[in-house]
Amino acid sequence: MSGTCAMKELGGKKYRCFFELALSVMGGKWKPIILYHLGEKGVLRFSELRRGMPEVTDRMLTRQLRELETDGLIVREVFRQVPPRVEYSLTEPGRGLFPILVTMRDWGAGYEKSMGAAPTPAGELYDANRKPQLHPRYQEGGAAQE
Amino acid sequence: MSGTCAMKELGGKKYRCFFELALSVMGGKWKPIILYHLGEKGVLRFSELRRGMPEVTDRMLTRQLRELETDGLIVREVFRQVPPRVEYSLTEPGRGLFPILVTMRDWGAGYEKSMGAAPTPAGELYDANRKPQLHPRYQEGGAAQE
Repeated sequence: MSGTCAMKELGGKKYRCFFELALSVMGGKWKPIILYHLGEKGVLRFSELRRGMPEVTDRMLTRQLRELETDGLIVREVFRQVPPRVEYSLTEPGRGLFPILVTMRDWGAGYEKSMGAAPTPAGELYDANRKPQLHPRYQEGGAAQE
Repeated sequence: MSGTCAMKELGGKKYRCFFELALSVMGGKWKPIILYHLGEKGVLRFSELRRGMPEVTDRMLTRQLRELETDGLIVREVFRQVPPRVEYSLTEPGRGLFPILVTMRDWGAGYEKSMGAAPTPAGELYDANRKPQLHPRYQEGGAAQE
């Protein structure tokens, strides 16, 4: 073996290897979906995020968003108007996860097929012909985020 | 939102989106490390895998390897000799995860730095100057795996 990783800690998360750190901040049931949607759409409000995840509860979504914010992957901006507007977008590290998520999605689709599962119905989130793009806001030279 | 994912099931795993399917088979504390080492080294015996993960117990490693085998990501080959030799290697879907793991590792290293953590000591598994390569055995046109 080429070596082993020592135990480290960052933001209350213990990890050995960098995969583990990455998985600990991006993994789980909802976080990849949140990050993926923000990557594609650029900026989303709570209600817009919720619409894309009908099975999540408000409480659970709020918790996921807070963790993502604490871990520095998303930014929460409050606009003081009536009613107050709250918008979420990706930070620099957060947008760095987008290509990983896209590759993971493509891998999952191929894996499902190779394992002989029923094909995903048309009209689902996954359309093999559509290449997901990071929102122009996050592109090099695009509109500044802060 | 561009749509939502329906609940599906594959190999006893429930998932909505493909990220979730990917994370459910590759995620966790030990699986990424196992897949990564097999990707780099090609073929490894149990004892060789164990050496790279000093904190894992035999029981836990055995369990992880069985799950990876059941999920079709690794192959376990037993050579009838005395003492019997058991070798593990990646399947086609398994080797498809290698580039994802490498990107995740690089992302984790950058993320750790951006969050102001102490730098990883030299001699660790992560060497930013070393670009991990999939073992020639798994390359297009390399030795057949089966």
